[in-house]
Amino acid sequence: MATLTYAHRQLLRAVSASAGLTRTEIAEKTGYSRPAITALSRDLIDCGLLAEGDSIRGQGRPSIILDIAAQGGFVVGVAAVAGRARILLADLAGHVHGSDEADWPLDAPDLARMLAERLPQLARKAAIGFDRVVGIGVAVPGLVDDTQQVCLQSNNLGWRDAPVAALIRAATGIPTYVENDANAVAVGEKLFGRARECGDFVVITLGRGIGGAIFVGGQLYRGHSGAAGEISHAAIQLDGPPCRCGKRGCLTTIASGRAILHAAVADGLPCAVMEDVEPLAESGDAAAIAILHRAGGALGLAIAQAIQMLNPALVVIAMEFGSEDGLMQRVIRQSIDAAIMPRLRAATQITFDFVTPAFTASGAAAVAAERFLLNPLITAEGA
Amino acid sequence: MATLTYAHRQLLRAVSASAGLTRTEIAEKTGYSRPAITALSRDLIDCGLLAEGDSIRGQGRPSIILDIAAQGGFVVGVAAVAGRARILLADLAGHVHGSDEADWPLDAPDLARMLAERLPQLARKAAIGFDRVVGIGVAVPGLVDDTQQVCLQSNNLGWRDAPVAALIRAATGIPTYVENDANAVAVGEKLFGRARECGDFVVITLGRGIGGAIFVGGQLYRGHSGAAGEISHAAIQLDGPPCRCGKRGCLTTIASGRAILHAAVADGLPCAVMEDVEPLAESGDAAAIAILHRAGGALGLAIAQAIQMLNPALVVIAMEFGSEDGLMQRVIRQSIDAAIMPRLRAATQITFDFVTPAFTASGAAAVAAERFLLNPLITAEGA
Repeated sequence: MATLTYAHRQLLRAVSASAGLTRTEIAEKTGYSRPAITALSRDLIDCGLLAEGDSIRGQGRPSIILDIAAQGGFVVGVAAVAGRARILLADLAGHVHGSDEADWPLDAPDLARMLAERLPQLARKAAIGFDRVVGIGVAVPGLVDDTQQVCLQSNNLGWRDAPVAALIRAATGIPTYVENDANAVAVGEKLFGRARECGDFVVITLGRGIGGAIFVGGQLYRGHSGAAGEISHAAIQLDGPPCRCGKRGCLTTIASGRAILHAAVADGLPCAVMEDVEPLAESGDAAAIAILHRAGGALGLAIAQAIQMLNPALVVIAMEFGSEDGLMQRVIRQSIDAAIMPRLRAATQITFDFVTPAFTASGAAAVAAERFLLNPLITAEGA
Repeated sequence: MATLTYAHRQLLRAVSASAGLTRTEIAEKTGYSRPAITALSRDLIDCGLLAEGDSIRGQGRPSIILDIAAQGGFVVGVAAVAGRARILLADLAGHVHGSDEADWPLDAPDLARMLAERLPQLARKAAIGFDRVVGIGVAVPGLVDDTQQVCLQSNNLGWRDAPVAALIRAATGIPTYVENDANAVAVGEKLFGRARECGDFVVITLGRGIGGAIFVGGQLYRGHSGAAGEISHAAIQLDGPPCRCGKRGCLTTIASGRAILHAAVADGLPCAVMEDVEPLAESGDAAAIAILHRAGGALGLAIAQAIQMLNPALVVIAMEFGSEDGLMQRVIRQSIDAAIMPRLRAATQITFDFVTPAFTASGAAAVAAERFLLNPLITAEGA
């Protein structure tokens, strides 16, 4: 593939962020001249990254909409969900062409070996040449480094300073990027999902743990030391349950799936997994109702704080348990409404999504697609 | 003055954000070629915006440090502090060349008339030609529009949809920008103060009210509808005192100077202004100590939440009352430490500053300097 310049990347970014644009619209958004856009878009169509779509008829010549060429490349997303490795093969528009799963490997070298074994089969089954796979994204519950190469710390996986990307790249030959799982879900919402045309938004993930990710001006905001979006240790109750961070009453000790299940078991409720609590509450069990009220109330309070500080256009609450408009969602909404200024409540769209295993893996694939298409300059590993 | 291109502005921005750079360093930071930087910097020196400073001797030719030319222009900052209009004439490096004060006018037309009358005198006294004043910044306690032209709402001033900038420009002939006062203090810290070399930082102002401002990647972050940094309505105590926003127990009802004074008066303490409470507490008055503990504890909790969400390199707490390392500052520090993860506490520098009237007016001047030097493209009013 020809080398893409900064100007090419800007054009791709503008098109991606608007879900398709005419050449005239691209010129307006990027500030490049119309002839420059014509030349740049020709390069990108020639190398298969941009595709012409429908045309809009107005005065004069019809205008053709340009969008990312869905099959300009394929990416793999890998996520650890509920102890399983979820693997997904997608195109650059997020359409899924194949999926697989396996036990989540104990360490990063095992993960690299497993992927080297399975990915060629996955591509073959989807009738996609393995050489067309341009990137691998791995979502981990934990902290990653700035260059998206190393998992610095994951208590959940028991990993520390694991050079995940280099190992997988060495085993598969494919550029690989690691990302925190909440960040990966947010990148998925930006590239493939609800937030495609949104610059400033927040994603909160609620599963066994709680995660947060912030987009500012269309870019993932990592903060000064990579920890931006850390909502799970918001101090909710200063004399509350002890947290492994060293404090007491952190949001995660009250509102995470782990904490909800723990409270239910402590109350003697017949629950084996976090998914069991909401049905019990919906059936009228007072103890289960109280647990979800406490959890959803605390989460709504922390989310309201984040909305007031960040003033995002959109908040996506991505849940691994609970049901559409179930008690947990109703309590969260009610708690946000009670804790937020009316003016900001009206200015902020709040939506819920369900985090299926494929959802997180799709976010991991989006991380690879984002690096391939839009943001290849940060590491030497870029396309 | 010759028209400056986007490239000129990028050079000025790089130099300003690093408090001076050599041409080679500018080339590295901006990505432009060394010959391009030589040409661009020559233009900027010719039009008086960039100045050559000390030279660094290494191998080969000595390298000369380029920085913003302090006297490439002069700006006026105007702020309402404690019922007075504070007016300040500064150069582009923030050095003060003159100051004035007056009763704060009741409405925006009065403010424009007052400035048209006083600014020429102020410039004359400082022996600066009035035609060298390139911008006016006005800091208001309230919400302003995106283009920094209109004060949308200020409960404090009783203003709504006031076209402040257009009125002042019409009366004085000088491009004018309005800014929220906390944002103005943050722009002052960025251009002239502690945050000059810092990309991601947060400023919290604590006076009669509480304000917040967020910088991301070296730019003020306004949020989706201009309300980013709204920390004063963080829900601290859901059954707490009623707030004029419609909720109960907002941070401002517990920790603002207004709330502190109100609590002291309600307790029968001999306090006439918010500044009276801390000396009483330092002298051992138990009621005064309790009021400041409650206020500082609540503020520290909200700041800890903001730090965990935003992961800034620096937090500046800019206070209008209290003393250096006084009880209020000690309680705030202690409360942040108790409510924040140790890892983030270590990664975040937390400092206190005192907001004198001149400090806020200097921030307002920085708003004008920022628009003149770095960011003139957003409105037609730019230089």
